[in-house]
Amino acid sequence: MYKAPVEEIAFTLKHVAGMGEAMSEGLLGDLGDDLVGAILAEAGRFATDEVAPLADIGDRQGARLEGGEVRLPDGWRDLYRNWIAGGWNGLTAPEAFGGQALPHMLNVAALEMWNSGSMAFALAPTLTMGAIEAVSAHGSAALKDKYLEKMVSGEWTGTMNLTEPHAGSDLGVLKARAERRDDGSYRLFGQKIFITWGEHDAADNIIHLVLARLPDAPAGTRGISLFLVPKLLVNDDGSLGARNDLFCHSLEHKLGIHGSPTCTMIYGDGKFGGEKGAVGWLVGEENKGLACMFTMMNNARLAVGMQGVAIAEAATQKALAYARERTQGRAPGWSGAGMSPIVDHPDVARMLLTMKALTQGARAISYACAHAIDMSHRAGDNNRHWQERAALLTPIAKSFSTDAGVDVASLGIQVHGGMGFIEETGAARYLRDARIAPIYEGTNGIQAIDLVTRKLPLSGGEQVKGFVAELKQIANNVRGSNLDGFGETAARLDTAIGDLEQATDWLLKTLAEEKAAEALSGATPYQRLFGLVLTGCYLAKGALAEAADGAGEGRIALCRFAAENLLAETAALRDRVVNGAASLAAARILLA
Amino acid sequence: MYKAPVEEIAFTLKHVAGMGEAMSEGLLGDLGDDLVGAILAEAGRFATDEVAPLADIGDRQGARLEGGEVRLPDGWRDLYRNWIAGGWNGLTAPEAFGGQALPHMLNVAALEMWNSGSMAFALAPTLTMGAIEAVSAHGSAALKDKYLEKMVSGEWTGTMNLTEPHAGSDLGVLKARAERRDDGSYRLFGQKIFITWGEHDAADNIIHLVLARLPDAPAGTRGISLFLVPKLLVNDDGSLGARNDLFCHSLEHKLGIHGSPTCTMIYGDGKFGGEKGAVGWLVGEENKGLACMFTMMNNARLAVGMQGVAIAEAATQKALAYARERTQGRAPGWSGAGMSPIVDHPDVARMLLTMKALTQGARAISYACAHAIDMSHRAGDNNRHWQERAALLTPIAKSFSTDAGVDVASLGIQVHGGMGFIEETGAARYLRDARIAPIYEGTNGIQAIDLVTRKLPLSGGEQVKGFVAELKQIANNVRGSNLDGFGETAARLDTAIGDLEQATDWLLKTLAEEKAAEALSGATPYQRLFGLVLTGCYLAKGALAEAADGAGEGRIALCRFAAENLLAETAALRDRVVNGAASLAAARILLA
Repeated sequence: MYKAPVEEIAFTLKHVAGMGEAMSEGLLGDLGDDLVGAILAEAGRFATDEVAPLADIGDRQGARLEGGEVRLPDGWRDLYRNWIAGGWNGLTAPEAFGGQALPHMLNVAALEMWNSGSMAFALAPTLTMGAIEAVSAHGSAALKDKYLEKMVSGEWTGTMNLTEPHAGSDLGVLKARAERRDDGSYRLFGQKIFITWGEHDAADNIIHLVLARLPDAPAGTRGISLFLVPKLLVNDDGSLGARNDLFCHSLEHKLGIHGSPTCTMIYGDGKFGGEKGAVGWLVGEENKGLACMFTMMNNARLAVGMQGVAIAEAATQKALAYARERTQGRAPGWSGAGMSPIVDHPDVARMLLTMKALTQGARAISYACAHAIDMSHRAGDNNRHWQERAALLTPIAKSFSTDAGVDVASLGIQVHGGMGFIEETGAARYLRDARIAPIYEGTNGIQAIDLVTRKLPLSGGEQVKGFVAELKQIANNVRGSNLDGFGETAARLDTAIGDLEQATDWLLKTLAEEKAAEALSGATPYQRLFGLVLTGCYLAKGALAEAADGAGEGRIALCRFAAENLLAETAALRDRVVNGAASLAAARILLA
Repeated sequence: MYKAPVEEIAFTLKHVAGMGEAMSEGLLGDLGDDLVGAILAEAGRFATDEVAPLADIGDRQGARLEGGEVRLPDGWRDLYRNWIAGGWNGLTAPEAFGGQALPHMLNVAALEMWNSGSMAFALAPTLTMGAIEAVSAHGSAALKDKYLEKMVSGEWTGTMNLTEPHAGSDLGVLKARAERRDDGSYRLFGQKIFITWGEHDAADNIIHLVLARLPDAPAGTRGISLFLVPKLLVNDDGSLGARNDLFCHSLEHKLGIHGSPTCTMIYGDGKFGGEKGAVGWLVGEENKGLACMFTMMNNARLAVGMQGVAIAEAATQKALAYARERTQGRAPGWSGAGMSPIVDHPDVARMLLTMKALTQGARAISYACAHAIDMSHRAGDNNRHWQERAALLTPIAKSFSTDAGVDVASLGIQVHGGMGFIEETGAARYLRDARIAPIYEGTNGIQAIDLVTRKLPLSGGEQVKGFVAELKQIANNVRGSNLDGFGETAARLDTAIGDLEQATDWLLKTLAEEKAAEALSGATPYQRLFGLVLTGCYLAKGALAEAADGAGEGRIALCRFAAENLLAETAALRDRVVNGAASLAAARILLA
């Protein structure tokens, strides 16, 4: 059973992601180690004791559509109520609406734990937090006053309604339409699919944020507006009114996250009588909806990255516990009576160490991204630098972590042998749940396009170059430490960073030459390359901090394993970026 | 929907795997291109039209245990009856018992197609073929006369009963016991788990091959005997008699292959009254059971490899069809109106080409393994050479193909985007089904141990060295072809083969120095390295054959893509073998 790794999380926040420096510089207000520790400990307790025990039943029962209502798995309604009672929903929300305005770093750490407990459950607050953010940033004062407090408390949940059957990665072609009404409200019509937690029975109301097109809107992405459309209309006194003209038509039967209702939502069908059209209000300006949605999508992408970290952590814990108990065969050097624990077989140890390194790498990258987001609001003159850093890190955090979630969960099954394939064991659920994360909130291929075409050129390429220079300093610090335990780590980091630098330079040059197809051919290998280099560097940063504290050699050993085993891949990734496009283009005749 | 790639299969058999040469040398008897073509076409038709359409219902319904009987999914009983009526079960079986004694190459090609249609369904004949083989090779004349004809026809199916809860990879500790009786028969007692098709309603009888221990047997693997234990006792006139003392206690709830009943079998519990003990007969000699089982496990391992090839093929077909139809966004260079098919996006093309290259590589390796098995029975003076070649190729075929099955199925989900996560789409089932193949019939980690410790040392290392020399000749042939389409293929193959050679030499040296832990630390990366090199070389062999025929450039382009994109990984794999053990050993403190 999952146990929240509170100490590891606190260490990574403080010594790797930058929370320690931010505190020292006074950028986090009153927040100190004690409060951070207390929050993480309580979140960890709740995730471990309350959320995780209900994950299996959530998976087995799933969310069910009964008579137009969506019923959550047994126990989940109470779980959600208890969770919001703990105040967890408003961790980063504005204080004016009951939030605690704490750093994102703390929230992603908590999100990791909720997701390790149950990814399907954690999706509810993940979506609500995104909706809070969009309304906070772009909603009118009236909308904020009417909706935010209940959304911040979690009494009302939020959703994002983007996708339509023909409009997924490309939202420019969506067809849902909105009509203006004289009172300033709008009426919405259309069908949205894949709406996470679009309908359920745990909250008093559900606030849908819906992308739709006005009758006179320009074609494409510049003609999309964002609307707030509540399930139940809200009276001026804040009490709940009539049912709005929207409903959940059906639930998807999915590979994983069964407890999370994935809804097809119908707007404006007149199901409940009266005038047709779901009543909604504009968020932001007309035709500027996509920009509003992207505000919330950036944080949502990091939140999805946390799902990858979370599954990787839980899967690693489970596999390691099994490998320590299960005995089979005799490992080299085993001197005990009978069979060895399988953890002693080198091949099993390789799998488990790979799982550990990927998990901690993904965690560090994601926390560093959250740190950059925090600094972009708090670092004064440096806000812009940190905004760019967050922008650069977001696609890497999302893609590397979610790929790690899938890879680590799959390795976790392998460690369990035949038992891994049996659903009751629980290892298979991690893979089933994890598999959606590289897809939603922008597929990892879309992330790679974003990274290469929009993030590398930030500040004319100086943002990424500055980052690479920081990474070189970490490699130098490893060399300067003269710690034997690091083995070849410094040299391996140098090589890997060099691969990243060459690939970056090549991409910047190729983009400058407007060779989009060539650049995009290497986007995914480049994204992976960046994530691996960051994994090595952040593991080194943590290891150096641990050594400076005079603590054990565990982090150094894991860093060395990553550097001498996982980072060997960077040369191949660099090569795919720099040399892979021609053969890819030539082979496309096979796909015609 | 899956369509059997009959032409691709025929090409690979003839031009890549060695069937062409074997025919020319007269080693395949009367078998000619026409007969091969006819058999493949008819198998392809049956797999496409009869098997594949019942895969979904098999997955949804699964096998069910009702009142002690196992019911197959709707339509599967008739499907099985039609399948055996086609004579497919006895393709390679001895003619004396109604088989066709055709080469294994043909059988694995057919197996691929059955498995692409439905892996859960194809498991029934896969297990039966293994049982036929064990009884043919080790059974007494009386056993053969009594059982083989019905097993060859498929009227009776077969099973392999190895695993017990505490005895999986390590069979030495199994506890099922057998007692001698004066009439030469035995009585069996114990529990076996994970018994594929251990009970079902499609065959008239089920012939269990069961590993058990005699009362006076030595401890460990040298005290295990193999028994034939029929579900229904068979009278001397061949008619079916009383129910034997064995039954299916429960079915596993699995991640995939739902249509295949995975049974816990109980022997000797007296459930049906009378004297306790399941009646069985010895196969081979007492205490030599494991050797008998290994005879059949080698071919079973290749058969599992075919599952990987099969899933990879089906998943690739499905993803490619979707990517051609689904439009989204505008790819670089897209000049059409509206959105491009997603296949035109470089990142999607990269995924699909990777899927194609892995599929064709895995197929070629597996067919080459089947060719070596055939030659080991037919090549006269060279039998021993081919026996070693088959032994060397088996772990690679099993592991590389089953890893490819998982990786390709996972990429297939990704190509489908959000639809890939919806079960009705069918892409997710491929991943669920594929995930068991790297585990059963010896985990891929066990295959790697086998490859490194037992197969590399064959003929003092000369077998593997001779093989590497053959691969170098392929690289030379690419260079000598002077075909521009190959790009850097020759140089990339040289480098990759060099990596394989260095890793091989290091392992042979390390094994000679009896440093087992060091050697085993790199076993899995080495196995992957070998598979990748073979992929590149076999794709090149096919491309050269196609070019010699004056046909299109498709194979050359795919070979080049593999060489210039996938093979870049070999350096990292070599490095993990040669340099990875020290950091792995040091990091094991984290697993304690």
